[in-house]
Formats: sequence, structure tokens, C-alpha cells
Amino acid sequence: MSSIKDVASLAGVAVGTVSRVINNTGAVKPVTRDKVKAAIEALNYVPNEVARNFKMQRSKMIALLLPSIWHPFFSELAYYIEDELDLEGFKLMLCNSGGKPEKELYYFDMLKQNKVAGVIGITYNDIENSVSTDIPIISIDRHFNKKITCVTSDNFEGGRVALRELVKAGAKKPAFLGTVTSVYSETMLRREGFVHEAKALGVPFVVYEEPDPIRDEEQYYNTFLQRHKDIDGVFAITDMTAATYIEKAKQAGIRVPEDVKVIGYDGIQDHPLFHPILSTIRQPVEEMARAAVRLLLKKVEGETLDLEVYRIPVTYREGETT
Amino acid sequence: MSSIKDVASLAGVAVGTVSRVINNTGAVKPVTRDKVKAAIEALNYVPNEVARNFKMQRSKMIALLLPSIWHPFFSELAYYIEDELDLEGFKLMLCNSGGKPEKELYYFDMLKQNKVAGVIGITYNDIENSVSTDIPIISIDRHFNKKITCVTSDNFEGGRVALRELVKAGAKKPAFLGTVTSVYSETMLRREGFVHEAKALGVPFVVYEEPDPIRDEEQYYNTFLQRHKDIDGVFAITDMTAATYIEKAKQAGIRVPEDVKVIGYDGIQDHPLFHPILSTIRQPVEEMARAAVRLLLKKVEGETLDLEVYRIPVTYREGETT
Repeated sequence: MSSIKDVASLAGVAVGTVSRVINNTGAVKPVTRDKVKAAIEALNYVPNEVARNFKMQRSKMIALLLPSIWHPFFSELAYYIEDELDLEGFKLMLCNSGGKPEKELYYFDMLKQNKVAGVIGITYNDIENSVSTDIPIISIDRHFNKKITCVTSDNFEGGRVALRELVKAGAKKPAFLGTVTSVYSETMLRREGFVHEAKALGVPFVVYEEPDPIRDEEQYYNTFLQRHKDIDGVFAITDMTAATYIEKAKQAGIRVPEDVKVIGYDGIQDHPLFHPILSTIRQPVEEMARAAVRLLLKKVEGETLDLEVYRIPVTYREGETT
Repeated sequence: MSSIKDVASLAGVAVGTVSRVINNTGAVKPVTRDKVKAAIEALNYVPNEVARNFKMQRSKMIALLLPSIWHPFFSELAYYIEDELDLEGFKLMLCNSGGKPEKELYYFDMLKQNKVAGVIGITYNDIENSVSTDIPIISIDRHFNKKITCVTSDNFEGGRVALRELVKAGAKKPAFLGTVTSVYSETMLRREGFVHEAKALGVPFVVYEEPDPIRDEEQYYNTFLQRHKDIDGVFAITDMTAATYIEKAKQAGIRVPEDVKVIGYDGIQDHPLFHPILSTIRQPVEEMARAAVRLLLKKVEGETLDLEVYRIPVTYREGETT
């Protein structure tokens, strides 16, 4: 393979001149530039990105940390993040952290070492003390106390909309069905929005929660079904929780939507082939993904961002369960 | 940040000695090694991977080319590929090619330039002439004529099993419902296995195919429904085709499984919350992913592989549609 020296030699210029042409930096006379370009073409010279990174000490790689790509919400998010990065000439490194803090911290170390230019992370672990401020990190959903910018759907508004839609569908006593993470997460605002709206409208309501992750799923749903027989609406913290509740309710002889109206959160169903089609608060996944990339690249360029949390509006999508 | 020179200076040794300790190459006296390690710790020195790649001209990065990560089969595959690579100390670069040949070729160029150590690709394009032999590439599903190793599920056996299961479920005249790609693909063996088994058992059958991608989905299914009213079994080339057929059949007043038994291929449903739960030929996704990684890393090490195509056994999973 030919080297930058071969190009310089053929073009009759210095190596530095070739480098300036390739990297489009510094002044080079048009006639010289043409000579260099002709030599590059003649030799079929390919600039070595590894070598260039070494000189510029800068990577065009962004790491994406997800609990698992094998989940429809995360894979849709990854799809749009990769697409937006590609438009900007960046590559995506994928890491399934499996929720393991040590695997997440490893990637933050890579960031310190300039091996990646930035990190987009979805983590529910308390790794806050290991993460410093002002470095190129965007968090999705998880709102750190420190100044790590977070992009999230408008969870509070989503909770309010869910309560209103349950009432509109005829629910007189709706319940919130969820889990609580050990550290603060934006997803907690789903319950807060729900509770806020129920109080505002004077609607009696139930909040049923267990620490995340649920140890005994069977018991979680059975306890809810036995303890709250009078509820006629459910707002579940995720679509998967909604779908699981519907299955358990069916086994207990409860019909959805006839006896209980159900609304989920996420919008993971992207085609209407499998049933029940959930009524849900749809996350603006594409907008969240593109916003996260744009904000991250601003940080990479050294810009200071205006906000700590960017909340993207959600929409309600009616399915077969309300 | 401290440099390798700072470490050498503090330890009172040459830079080359520090490098040998870090890379675990060459002889270093235990006492010297301890001094270097103490200096590394004292200075909190982090070896720069970019610089190291430059010297070794070798990347620990594998590129994964997928049509789209936003598809349950591909996201499950990516999940296990990343997991297996992680065990071997490699990182995964993700590329949604969107089926665009130019995007795929870009990553093969990166391979030529040592920016990635190897490529795992799922492509249905005819990029064969642009890809040379003997370089670290593993193809999934797509069998190139040249010696690019392919890992795939046993599609032929899958087709045979599907036919037998349809007959066992009571079908007297089953149909194969599929599409044909312009270049040879291993997935074509699904039809061949189906046809082979029908002939072997003396069962009358129908093959219905259109070129991939289908231009007018509405017309594709309507023509099939009108032209083949006497069929009572369907083996669809993918689960999504099966699910779409079931929806269209329902609109035409055909009940599944009462009137027509349906079997898909893939096994994309990993929890029984959404219906119909498809009867399907389940791809051995985890085994395919791990095999692809292991074979690729052998190629990266310069080994020659025994086979051109590695076919992993499939299993039949009964759902609600047979």
C-alpha cells in the first residue's frame, strides 16, 4: 500500500503539504492541491485513520451504552442514533452493559483516554461519583444530579395525559402500576404526572409500586389483583408491564378493556399485527435519539449547553385496550 | 495527563522498558517491573489505546453490518455478537446499512485500512466483486460464491420440518409464501426444503413468490388469497410474513388455525404476551451469533476455516397458529 511519503514524492511536495490537503487545514495553492490530488488518485492512496487519530488525538467514535439492544425501545433508539451519527461522519460503538456498573465505567474510561469522543448512556446505576462533569456525555432518561445533560420524553406530561385518557375512556378509579429504582430517574415523573392530574380532577386513585427489579413477578401482579379489586383503569409504567398485567388479569377473569382500561408507556409496537394493540403514551424515540446526538456533538466541540434536561413532547396513541 | 515519559522518569527506566511492561512483551526484571507498576499507579497513568493501535497497526474493533438494528431478529443477533466479542476483549461498531451497498462497501474499506479487525455482515446486495477472499469477513445468511464464510440456520431442514408439521396439524394442501432476492441467499433453501419434503411425502403444494422487496403488499396478499382458495396450510418465509398473512386472511373471513394452519420462520416473539403466538421455525440466534464471532476471530488470527457454510440446527416451536 502506498504511503503519504509516496504521494508527496510523486507530487513533488513536502509530506506536510499532502497532510494539509487531506485534512483541509492551512493554505495550499490551488495548483499544488491539484497535483496532490492527482498523486493520491494515481497511487490509490488511502489515508490511515488510525494514524490520523494518533496525530489529532481525537476519535470519530461515539459509545452507546444500553442495558440491552435486545429490547424494542432500545433498538429503535440505537437505530436513529446511528443514523444521526452517520450524517455527521461519526461511528457508533455499541455496548450492552447488562446494567452492570463496571461495564459502564469501562466505557467512561475509554472516554478519558480519547478512544471515544463521547458517550450516550442509558443507565439506571448509581455511577454518578465516577462520572465527572463537563465531559461529552448525554444521558437518556436518567437524570444525574451533576451537570450531565439528559434527554428524555416528557414523562410528567405523559402521566397527566394517561390519567386524563383513562378517565375519558370511563375509568372511575384508575391505578398506577410501576416500579421504583434506587436512584432518581426521570421515569418516576410518570407516576407524579398521573397523581397530579388525578388530584387536580378530584379522581380517586391507587399507586402500586415495588422496588426495581421485581423479584417475584407472579407475586407482584397477584398482590395487585387481590388488593385492588375495585380499580377500573391501569396506567402501567411501561408497555411490557401493561401487557403482562393484561395477561394476568385475563387469567383472573378480568376483561380488558371491558372491565379495566389499560394504558402503557413506550410505544414499542410499530405494526398492528400482534394483539392486544396497547393504548400507550408513545415515546418520541426518533426525536430523542437525534436530539441526544446533536447535543453530544455540541459538547464534543466544547460548547456549553443551555439546559440540564431536555424534555421532548409525547403523544397518546389509542389502541385496543381503552 | 501524565505520559509514558513521566512514568519512565519516575521509575528511573527507559521508555521502552515501560512499554514492555505495559504490553507484556520482552524480558523485564521483576524488580524493574514492580518499579514501573508503582510509577504507573502513582501517576494514574492510562496507556493510550489510539497510540498503541498506531504502533501495532491493529484494531480491536469488529464492524457489524445489519440492514437495520430496529428489527427483533437483528437486535437479538447483535446482542449475542456483542456479548461474545466482549468476552474476547473486542468492541463492536454498529452500522445500519439500510441495505445500501455504498454504506456496506465503506466498512469493507475500513477493513482494508486496518481500522477494524473484521466484519460480520448481513447483506442481501450483490457486492461480491468488491469483497476479496481470505480477509476477516463472516457473512450471516448470505452465501457468497467466493470463499467468504457464511453462518446460517439450517434453512433446508427448517423448510422440511415446516412442511411435516403443517401436515401433522392436518393440512392437505399447504402453500409456501415467500419472496425471491436477486442474488442467491441461503433463505431460498427454506422453499427448497418445503418442496423437497412435500414431494417426498406425495403432498400437493403451492409455491407463491414475488421478487424482494415486495412493491405492493396489499396486492401481494390479495392475489395469493384469491388465486389459492383451496390451500389449508401456509409456511411463510419469515414470521412477519406469517403475521401479515394472518391479518389479511382474517379480513377475508379465513380463520387461523381453524381454516388454515400457519408456520413462520425466525422466532422473533420472545414472550407470550402478544397474540397470535406464531408457530415457527426458531432460528438458533444465540448459537449463530457466537459461532460467527468465534469463526471471525480465527480468521483474524490468520487461521483457515474448514467449511464455507456453517449451518446451525433449527427447532420447531409450536404456538397458536397450527
